[in-house]
Order: sequence, then C-alpha cells, then structure tokens
Amino acid sequence: MVANAHASHSTSSPYRRFLDPLKGKELTPPPIWLMRQAGRYLPEYRATREQAGGFLDLCYSPRLAAEVTLQPIRRYGFDAAILFADILIVPDALGQSVRFEVGEGPRLDPITTEKELARLRPDATGKKFAIICETVQRLRQDLPAETALIGFCGAPWTVATYMVGGQGSTDQADARSWAYRDPDGFQKLIDMLVEVSVDYLSGQVKAGADALQIFDSWAGSLPDNEFARWVIDPTRAMVEALKARHPEIPIIGFPRGAGASTAEFVTATGVDGVSCDTAMPLCAMRELAELDVAVQGNLDPLLLVAGGEALDRRVDEILAAMKGRRHIFNLGHGITPPTPPENVARLVERVRGGAG
Amino acid sequence: MVANAHASHSTSSPYRRFLDPLKGKELTPPPIWLMRQAGRYLPEYRATREQAGGFLDLCYSPRLAAEVTLQPIRRYGFDAAILFADILIVPDALGQSVRFEVGEGPRLDPITTEKELARLRPDATGKKFAIICETVQRLRQDLPAETALIGFCGAPWTVATYMVGGQGSTDQADARSWAYRDPDGFQKLIDMLVEVSVDYLSGQVKAGADALQIFDSWAGSLPDNEFARWVIDPTRAMVEALKARHPEIPIIGFPRGAGASTAEFVTATGVDGVSCDTAMPLCAMRELAELDVAVQGNLDPLLLVAGGEALDRRVDEILAAMKGRRHIFNLGHGITPPTPPENVARLVERVRGGAG
Repeated sequence: MVANAHASHSTSSPYRRFLDPLKGKELTPPPIWLMRQAGRYLPEYRATREQAGGFLDLCYSPRLAAEVTLQPIRRYGFDAAILFADILIVPDALGQSVRFEVGEGPRLDPITTEKELARLRPDATGKKFAIICETVQRLRQDLPAETALIGFCGAPWTVATYMVGGQGSTDQADARSWAYRDPDGFQKLIDMLVEVSVDYLSGQVKAGADALQIFDSWAGSLPDNEFARWVIDPTRAMVEALKARHPEIPIIGFPRGAGASTAEFVTATGVDGVSCDTAMPLCAMRELAELDVAVQGNLDPLLLVAGGEALDRRVDEILAAMKGRRHIFNLGHGITPPTPPENVARLVERVRGGAG
Repeated sequence: MVANAHASHSTSSPYRRFLDPLKGKELTPPPIWLMRQAGRYLPEYRATREQAGGFLDLCYSPRLAAEVTLQPIRRYGFDAAILFADILIVPDALGQSVRFEVGEGPRLDPITTEKELARLRPDATGKKFAIICETVQRLRQDLPAETALIGFCGAPWTVATYMVGGQGSTDQADARSWAYRDPDGFQKLIDMLVEVSVDYLSGQVKAGADALQIFDSWAGSLPDNEFARWVIDPTRAMVEALKARHPEIPIIGFPRGAGASTAEFVTATGVDGVSCDTAMPLCAMRELAELDVAVQGNLDPLLLVAGGEALDRRVDEILAAMKGRRHIFNLGHGITPPTPPENVARLVERVRGGAG
C-alpha cells in the first residue's frame, strides 16, 4: 500500500504549492500569481505581440502564446501560469466572427434572436479549441515542474454579454434586455455556452491544466434573481460537469462585482476557489474563507502602478487579514499596461518575504 | 401647549408621506419615486429640453428646471420630486468649465495637481448655487403640498472622479491614481468639495428641500481602505455639518456598487436612508433595514423598459422582501431613455395597488 501510494504519487504531477489552498491547505506565504500577468506592461510581451500580427493570431499560435505565458514566470517565478488566450475564443470557435481592432476593444456581429443563434456551430468548435489545447500541452512541457498551469474560459453570462452586445459595455444592457424580453431564448444561448465551455475546459485539463478559472467579469450588473439564473446556475452546471469528468480538478470562480452575493455564489456553485475584486472588503474576504473555499484577490492594480510604500502597506494588510486562511495572493482585476515591471518584482518579494 | 403644538404644526410643512420611512416609520404601500424620473423618456421633457439650448442652460433656468421636475409628478403623482440639476453643477460653480456635448457625456478640463486645484474658487460658488436654489423655491411653491422635494448633490468622491478625469470613465483610474500618488493633495480637493457641497445643500434646504440625497455613483471601484477615506469620511463630514445646521433634514446616501461595504457605509456615515443599486440582493436590503435606516432601491431600470408580467413579478418580490421595513420604492439606477412611459404608470399602480 505504501509502495503503491508512493508509486502513484511519483507518476502523478510533482508538488505545486499553488494548488494547496484550493485543496484545503493554508500556506504561508500564500501562493501568488496575477491576473493578466502576461501582458503589455512587459517589453518582452510587446516584442512577441509584434511578431504575431493580430491579437487573435497570437492566441492561435501555440508557440507564441506559450512564449508570452512563460515570460512572467521567467521574470517573477509566480506559483502559477495562466494560459494566454481570450474569453472570446469561445464565440470565435462557435463561428461568430470576432475582431480586435487597434485601440478599441473586441467587435462581434451581435446575436440578439434565436434565429441568429441557430447559425452558431457548437459541433464545429473542435478545430479552434484544439489549437488552444496545443498551447496548454506545450506549456506543461516548458513550465518549471513546480509551476501550476491554470486553464480558463469566460463564464457563459459574461461571454453572452459580448455575443449579444457585439462589444464590451458598461451596463451590458443588450444581454440583460434580451434576458428580460425573452428568457427562454436567452437560456438557449447560455445552455450552448455551458456545453461548449465544459468541452473547452475539459480539453485544457486533458492537455495538462492543473486548475481552471471561470471569469465572470460582468456578474455585477444583475439583480439577485437574474444573478441566480445567469451567473450561479450556469457556473454550477459547468462545475458539476467538469467534476464528473475530472474529479480532482480545482475550479476558481471570479464573479466580479458580485459584492454581497458572493457568499451565495460560492456555496451554490461548488467552486474550490473564489476570486475577489478590488471592492471586496478584507473582512468579507475573511468570511468567504470560512466557506470551505480558497480566496484570491483583491489588490488594486492601480496601486501596483503607483508602487512605493503605499503598495507595501496594503500588501501587508491583505496578508495580515488572510493569515491562517486558504489564501492565494492576486489582484482584484488584471494588471494594467502602465504598470512598472519593477513594482511587480517588489510585490512578489514583499509577499514572499513577509512570511520569513 | 396643545394649541401651540397645533400652531407649530400648521405653520410647518404639511404631511408628506415620503418622509416617514426616513424618520423611522414604515409605510404600506411604501412611498415611491424613481431616480431620473424627470428625463428623456418623457415627451414633455424632450420638448422643454429643446427650448433650453444646452443641458446646463436647462439646469440654470429656474423656470424650465422647475417645469421638468414637475412633469413626472403631474403624470404619476410620485411621493417625492427631485430637483432637476446635475452633479457637475458643483465643479462648474467652482470655475472648472463643464461642457455637455451632444451624444457624449460631460467634458471638463482635468485637474490633476495641487497647482490646478488652486485655481478653483470655492468662495465664488454663490451666484450659480443661488440659481439652483431659486429652482428649489419655485418648486416648493408649485409642487402639491403632499409631495416631498428632494435636493441633491454628487458625493465628493464621485464629483472628484469627473474633475480629475475630465469625463466619465469605467474605472475612475485618474482620480484613483492621484489618490494613490499624492493622497494629501487629493485630500485637499475632497475637503474643498465637502465644504462647498455642504453650503450648496444647506442652501437647498433653506430654499425648501425636505430631504437630501448624496449620489456616489462611483463608490464601487475602491478597495476598503480607500472607500473608508474617500467615500465614508467625506460623506460623514457632510452629514455631520448638515445635521448641525438642519437637525431635522433626512439625508439619503447612494454608494453605488458598494456591495459588501454598504452596511459599514450606513453605520459610519449616519445617513437616514440608503439607496441600493440593482446588484444588492434583497436579503441584504432586508438586513440593511435593521440598521435604523430607510432602504431605497433596487428595481432594474432595464426591467422597467421590458415591462409586462416579469416587471409585476419583480415588483411583488421587492415589496414582499421589504414588507414591514422602512422601505422607499425606487430603481437601482436612473430611468433610461427607451423606457415606455406606460410602464412607469404600471409600476406605480402595482406598488400602490399591491398594498390594498
């Protein structure tokens, strides 16, 4: 039995400390990674980006996408890498053409009726998903053994807001209006997204992802009953389907802006980790950590731009508040392009040194 | 004594039911008014707007501003009218020129340093504030005796985000960055806004406002320590100063997006009422009502556009959740231009009929 256990351990993944809080174990210092850690604030990213052509070309080049994923690991030795891709890979793979124009956000031909929905091809996503999974495979080979690899996708609600609105918006009015006007039709879009997103994430796990994160960036605009239907229910359905296929895979939810509904999100979806935005008070993060879940977040990305002693003080506050809890150090939102790379180094050192 | 009490009552304001929940009394059905109830969804508003010239010309015309304030009262008999003005009256009165260009939001010449701040004229706001107060005086004369009149201003934090950014933004990065880079300098801007906003609101009370609302539309982007400094502290300072001058005036706070920090906002600022955005779950609204405060909100304005039975159902849910609490029926955000006026009539009837 001991030999078997040892053998089983030695053929499975090596120890990756990032996974401990997700699997029930508190770590000091906490693991650290940063949302959008591969990005424009790094000169080496900008150089690779120029080679790629368009933004989607970068996502669909396993070689270049793996390269930009690795760049921040080389610089900072984060405990986790996150696959470089975009949440709009899913609508693109479904056949809704996605464009990224320079200086603007993404643009899609909006889908606002069941008829337009019928043109999407959930059965034809395999080819594009396979390219992304090739990036995951490369990464698992090229990453240091101790670095966890996070796969991800957008949550059905957030992806739907782009598919229906045709672009990002501050209030997601188009998707919310369709959901009010014709909830059964909108449900078909959400169901389709649940199904293909589960396949997509399952493919990432098979290709080597150690954990998954579901980004629901626009969860904060919905009243509680709509939040239950369009955020909680689809996320729970995804978690259940993924756990059925991959019982050991930890899943992190990020219902950005969910505020006072976050505890309900955690208990109802069954996620192993929850990511908190900048507005979540530290006392509420401590309470979330009582819910048998790892808690990640919520340093303000703008404070990482400012740096200095104010950054140090806030890092210490977050560490103190989450001490003894299942904590993963992260930002409340993605790194912004003006961030000085040396501030990221200072942050990593502070988090790791603060434990000593 | 009885005669005196009667005399005193008869010379003071007549009974205005809107004020009851703010002064500790639950009412069934709850009073109702709607944020941005005077606005572009009404044809009579659009007609008056055309007479005015620019948007600020409308705000600075007591006759026309009073007219648009009265329009929704005539149509729907709301329990409260809210002064028609804009939160950017304060920077405009301070001498930071404010423009509203067609199809775009407001534009200001950004203030980002203490030197630029020194050009503002807090001592010279009287003339423009007096015009707004003349609108309040007209309104108090022209409103039905039973209709309460709400005065308002933007909270210092939210007004500062426009003054520093020069326009609206989704993340308020310019103001937040200044606050991180140079908190003492930014504090001077906030202190100036506290001081002139108290004068402005005090003038509205003297001119006849029965209650005040402080709109903090961008409260939701701040981490808890910044929220305490830039949202809670200035609001508490305003509430204290206003209560010192006008002990009986009820004050409603609207820290939009404050989510899990809303209870802290209520207890720390001393507001008499709190307005909740669409994302606040009804169970959290019920809990807020335990804090010796009236609770207002949170119907989704987009559901008011959609109308129909879904609207009725949600109205009933809100009424049921807040039954027996100090509740003021309202939206979670302002009415949007595509709202059919007949849906507003349906809502008012539902709220008032639901009590019968």
